Amino acid sequence: MSFDLVATGGEARAGVLHTAHGDVPTPAFMPVGTKGTVKGLDPERLRELGTTILLGNTYHLHFRPGEELVEAMGGLHRFMAWDGPILTDSGGFQVFSLRDTITGVDEDGVTFRSVYDGKEARFTPELAAGIQRRLGSDIAMCLDVCPPPDVTRQELEAATAATTRWATRQLEAPRAPGQLVFGISQGGTDPELRRRSTEEIAALGFDGHALGGLSVGEDREAMLETVGWAAPLLPVERPRYFMGIGDPAGILEVVERGIDMFDCVLPTRLGRTGSALTWEGRLNLKNARFARDERPLDESCSCSACRRFTRAYLRHLINQQELLGLILLSEHNVRFLLDLTAGARASIERGEFGSYKTAALERLDSAAFAAGEEVSR
Amino acid sequence: MSFDLVATGGEARAGVLHTAHGDVPTPAFMPVGTKGTVKGLDPERLRELGTTILLGNTYHLHFRPGEELVEAMGGLHRFMAWDGPILTDSGGFQVFSLRDTITGVDEDGVTFRSVYDGKEARFTPELAAGIQRRLGSDIAMCLDVCPPPDVTRQELEAATAATTRWATRQLEAPRAPGQLVFGISQGGTDPELRRRSTEEIAALGFDGHALGGLSVGEDREAMLETVGWAAPLLPVERPRYFMGIGDPAGILEVVERGIDMFDCVLPTRLGRTGSALTWEGRLNLKNARFARDERPLDESCSCSACRRFTRAYLRHLINQQELLGLILLSEHNVRFLLDLTAGARASIERGEFGSYKTAALERLDSAAFAAGEEVSR
Repeated sequence: MSFDLVATGGEARAGVLHTAHGDVPTPAFMPVGTKGTVKGLDPERLRELGTTILLGNTYHLHFRPGEELVEAMGGLHRFMAWDGPILTDSGGFQVFSLRDTITGVDEDGVTFRSVYDGKEARFTPELAAGIQRRLGSDIAMCLDVCPPPDVTRQELEAATAATTRWATRQLEAPRAPGQLVFGISQGGTDPELRRRSTEEIAALGFDGHALGGLSVGEDREAMLETVGWAAPLLPVERPRYFMGIGDPAGILEVVERGIDMFDCVLPTRLGRTGSALTWEGRLNLKNARFARDERPLDESCSCSACRRFTRAYLRHLINQQELLGLILLSEHNVRFLLDLTAGARASIERGEFGSYKTAALERLDSAAFAAGEEVSR
Repeated sequence: MSFDLVATGGEARAGVLHTAHGDVPTPAFMPVGTKGTVKGLDPERLRELGTTILLGNTYHLHFRPGEELVEAMGGLHRFMAWDGPILTDSGGFQVFSLRDTITGVDEDGVTFRSVYDGKEARFTPELAAGIQRRLGSDIAMCLDVCPPPDVTRQELEAATAATTRWATRQLEAPRAPGQLVFGISQGGTDPELRRRSTEEIAALGFDGHALGGLSVGEDREAMLETVGWAAPLLPVERPRYFMGIGDPAGILEVVERGIDMFDCVLPTRLGRTGSALTWEGRLNLKNARFARDERPLDESCSCSACRRFTRAYLRHLINQQELLGLILLSEHNVRFLLDLTAGARASIERGEFGSYKTAALERLDSAAFAAGEEVSR
């Protein structure tokens, strides 16, 4: 088995995911290494921050530098010098989120123009499996049809049905040695379609399962409600992955609903734009109020940036567009989410997830309120 | 005494420079931390690379974030979290190299427009000392008048004379506790003026001495000839600093002529533009020939990048404008110059600098020849 459940608290779960490159304690936040690098972060530093598993993007790696080259260089782990677990997505999300580039969807697959050179390209379940096999990731994801939230119900139903048929095909495709394959359910927040998709995918016998096509712009309450009843439809003994969530409150909400894994570009993207995730809310380091602020980004954070640097220094670096500023903020932001997630896991093991979540959301909400931001829930 | 001579070989010297933040084995290459950061390099990593002393730019720090703020934050060491030695230049080179921004030079100082906001600003020897005192560097440099290589002899003579008068004033200015102050000789490659300036500066009793106004576009042979006879005019028992040289051959040439310290932005600037310093010459990683090159940047380098990453991976990062690529190349390039310099020091101690230099230049020249570049000498 690829997954052991260690403790539960309501639907929230603490577990261990076993992969060919090591174990991953869950819940687990996965930093996103789009093109074979988590932007700005050295893999050694990622390890020090507490990263246990990374995500790589099949779409981007297929075009740059190409899976054939990565395979010739010994696979993605060796190429990027990360010997821990890697999950690769299928490219489905990128293809379908770049709607204008799609030139055709048929039963066999999807045809589109590459964002790199405009040349026509094609993904099928077999090709998505083949790319991920050559990359050599520990977990491969199914090619799904991921519609936007404003799609008609008819289109959503067609996408959901196609996702199941494609999942069935991909399950038969060759995989890398020891590679796990996860299925993805679709259906947006439509109760009937999400239920049907989730049950169909769950029945196929994947090593793990993802809820896809959520957190793509739909109403947050409806999204969380959907996760709340759809996650428990997935097999208890397999890991559950929510694709694309990384705001602190959102992480806690999906963990509460039985999710084990999640990923997001948020921490590194915020870092590159000069913002820090903290228990005081998101800090925009360009703000003049930090000019002489001798405190670390977050008083309770033990990351290397917080141990050594003041907000005043980091503001100076960001204002001067110094690379080190972007790097240090990215490191801190990744650490903030890893720490939050590790804290959630520990609280589940102690049987105290409910109070952990309540306390964390209160801090996040009051910080957001103090900053005049929309509250996190 | 701030300097101990350990060994000599011809004019080449191995020594130890003592500063308030620790000892520096010489010859020493100083990476340039322009605005309180060596571009892209974490101070922890700088230390791992073997950096023993950094340079900070008074001109840039004066305007961004300002020495008053740096002082309020505990000084430059604490601000940038580097507890090793720091040398600050005086800002003279920047002011005089930005000739178009100068609005007036008088006996008291120089008036110019800041490159940051166009506002009028002024440097005098006393102000240059005051800024460096507040930054709290271990070594402060004198404000010199640094003319371009195409200046008339009359202007060069005036600049040289003013440099001595300013040096005399700066020597009287208050300094930070334990701060050493170095004088700078000018005079270009003019034998009479350089000799006069060097002798005048040497007579003033500075803690160390620099040859300034060289490596600014003049003929290389003439520059090296000047260093060859001017460096020995400086007191044997004080450190000698050649301002602004960082190409591998150039470092060896000035070390041979009795120079102990040197700095250059070359390794980080090359790194950010995708080039690596190696014993095979400068590698432009964008070159297609590296697409499947599984070798490290340099086979004989033990830096963290060379231990872990292939040229193929680094090329991918550079082509995709990934931050990690710029960082890793910058790290490697700094290490390359630090290793070259450490090798030079070890060879002086062994009494074998001559053969070390000859062998190194042969490798560098044959690499440059193979690459169709101009040879290093």
